[in-house]
Amino acid sequence: MNLLLLEEGDFVAADRVRLRDRRLTHMRDVHRVEVNESLRVGRLGGQMGSGRLLRLDATEAELQVSFDQPPPAKLPVTLLLALPRPKMLRRVLQTVAAMGVPRLVLLNSYRVEKSFWQTPFLEPAAIREQLILGLEQARDTVLPEVIIEKRFKPFVEDRLPQLAAGTCGLVGHPGDFPTCPRAVGGPVTLAIGPEGGWIPYEVEKFTAAGLQPVQLGERILRVETAVSALLARLF
Amino acid sequence: MNLLLLEEGDFVAADRVRLRDRRLTHMRDVHRVEVNESLRVGRLGGQMGSGRLLRLDATEAELQVSFDQPPPAKLPVTLLLALPRPKMLRRVLQTVAAMGVPRLVLLNSYRVEKSFWQTPFLEPAAIREQLILGLEQARDTVLPEVIIEKRFKPFVEDRLPQLAAGTCGLVGHPGDFPTCPRAVGGPVTLAIGPEGGWIPYEVEKFTAAGLQPVQLGERILRVETAVSALLARLF
Repeated sequence: MNLLLLEEGDFVAADRVRLRDRRLTHMRDVHRVEVNESLRVGRLGGQMGSGRLLRLDATEAELQVSFDQPPPAKLPVTLLLALPRPKMLRRVLQTVAAMGVPRLVLLNSYRVEKSFWQTPFLEPAAIREQLILGLEQARDTVLPEVIIEKRFKPFVEDRLPQLAAGTCGLVGHPGDFPTCPRAVGGPVTLAIGPEGGWIPYEVEKFTAAGLQPVQLGERILRVETAVSALLARLF
Repeated sequence: MNLLLLEEGDFVAADRVRLRDRRLTHMRDVHRVEVNESLRVGRLGGQMGSGRLLRLDATEAELQVSFDQPPPAKLPVTLLLALPRPKMLRRVLQTVAAMGVPRLVLLNSYRVEKSFWQTPFLEPAAIREQLILGLEQARDTVLPEVIIEKRFKPFVEDRLPQLAAGTCGLVGHPGDFPTCPRAVGGPVTLAIGPEGGWIPYEVEKFTAAGLQPVQLGERILRVETAVSALLARLF
């Protein structure tokens, strides 16, 4: 936690917050903050600044806070991801938030196991929890938008063309394709497949929606690794 | 497991292996391979090829194997990493092996907690286990070399200058430094700090050894994410 992220409910005055949850525990046991010390704070969806610890006891911490700094810029990208297995999903959500992706679409694919759609980690509160961890890690305050699309065809046929319009549209796929471009310098729509990759029908559908297949080298990377590697290459 | 990695002890003839361990379980329960089906195999430290399942029962699998393909090229990089916390260490080892890093130095730093050096995950067998998982993921056969340096100063003063000679030497450090270069096209020595970063003394020592500080943007990434992002940017 490199940023103490504050929500509206934490505020007891315009410049005063009280915390009782895991953030209290973290401040006390991990950061070992003492009274009058300062730490970085951010207002969820708003600015960042600093907080001075006024009081800390077993059940509650009180801080005086001020905000003077915008959060870091997001990447100009919409990331489409074949729904990963539940354990990986949680880490990917953190990575996506930490790297500054503003919009994530979790998409079905032929090779996504049906059971993955049943995971409690897809509940809005569970998604939000992982996104917050990513924001706290990277020092950002703005939650990414997460869109869940359980049906591949209607999404790719009806919604993707508008989403991808005016962007550099790319679909990662092994094979005899150009390598993924570098430092594109403009907005990107990037689709990353499931373990085992997209099936040819899906790649055709992406191509029809305006995305170009690009290959990512011989090595097969875990989804989380592929996400950070591709974003670092593109931006 | 995208590659069935075979060791010398598995061979019962030049073209025949018998497996009894987690690879047997994986073939049976995850890949659900059937007799006469083929799967990708690799000889640890050697070539890759294919294996045909001859026999599979509760305790043993037998395959006929042939090898005709070199493993993918490694990246021309020596990666120096402040020793991460034990849980992260395991994942980082997998990522390093999967991305094709041939040489990793796990290094002490002022901000590495002393207790991290006590973890059983630093035992050679435990390191090897994680590296193998990374190779199986990415389809590679060649284990990276892992060097453990518990003392920062003698390593950076006495050994690093030779290691870094003739390479593009970089140390990741937040601050008013040039951004990390892209697609350097030659060998690199890259040092990535602990959570909280290197201390100024350490950055000075790296600089004296020929490494240039580069910054990686405002966002603070987990070590695993930083490793994959930086490697993707550099190569």
